[in-house]
Amino acid sequence: MTRMKALPTALLVDGSTAEACCPPLSERPLSSEEAEVAARLFKALGDPIRLRLLSAVASHKDGEACVCDISDVGVSQPTVSHHLRKLREAGLLSSERRGTWIYYRADPVTLAAMGRILSAASGRV
Amino acid sequence: MTRMKALPTALLVDGSTAEACCPPLSERPLSSEEAEVAARLFKALGDPIRLRLLSAVASHKDGEACVCDISDVGVSQPTVSHHLRKLREAGLLSSERRGTWIYYRADPVTLAAMGRILSAASGRV
Repeated sequence: MTRMKALPTALLVDGSTAEACCPPLSERPLSSEEAEVAARLFKALGDPIRLRLLSAVASHKDGEACVCDISDVGVSQPTVSHHLRKLREAGLLSSERRGTWIYYRADPVTLAAMGRILSAASGRV
Repeated sequence: MTRMKALPTALLVDGSTAEACCPPLSERPLSSEEAEVAARLFKALGDPIRLRLLSAVASHKDGEACVCDISDVGVSQPTVSHHLRKLREAGLLSSERRGTWIYYRADPVTLAAMGRILSAASGRV
């Protein structure tokens, strides 16, 4: 089986990726380069349609879904495709073509990296 | 001592708050109302200056900072104030005036709610 593919270049800023970047918010002030990488990830989730699509994929059977499974979000198919591409570019979704359909899967490394940025800060107080 | 104040109205969409909203991404597809609330939070973090300010506050001594401590992010003071207001409106920072200065603190409830949305999904795969 072909491996699921993300578009990792979107995560690169001077060679940094979501996994390498960034420390928890409470650890130290982020550098401008780290903040650029992290902001791109959070911005990708800063849209309600993208969040609905990502949750539809992540909660679907076996953690993956084709566009036929998840496009019931009240927007046109080109808009769905646009938002799926943004999620892929951010590294939040990986995709794999199987026959006619492209299957999507939430990327655990990117989500874990984002959760790490938030979680330690929230545990500080 | 005066209690720290957030601007909770910014979190309200039909009475929902960050704490009440939302389930982990892998649990079920988000409703449109839930996605609106969560997207507003993530969008507030989708800016590198805001992330640098929030990490500067969260990592400062005792988890709080006045604007005099954190404004070294390479933008003008009005721009710093604008971003601090956006973070407050999203519920990510609370603030308290003491004498001349306003002190900021990262809001643990909002950060924990955001981390929860991401963390279970990342643990699924």
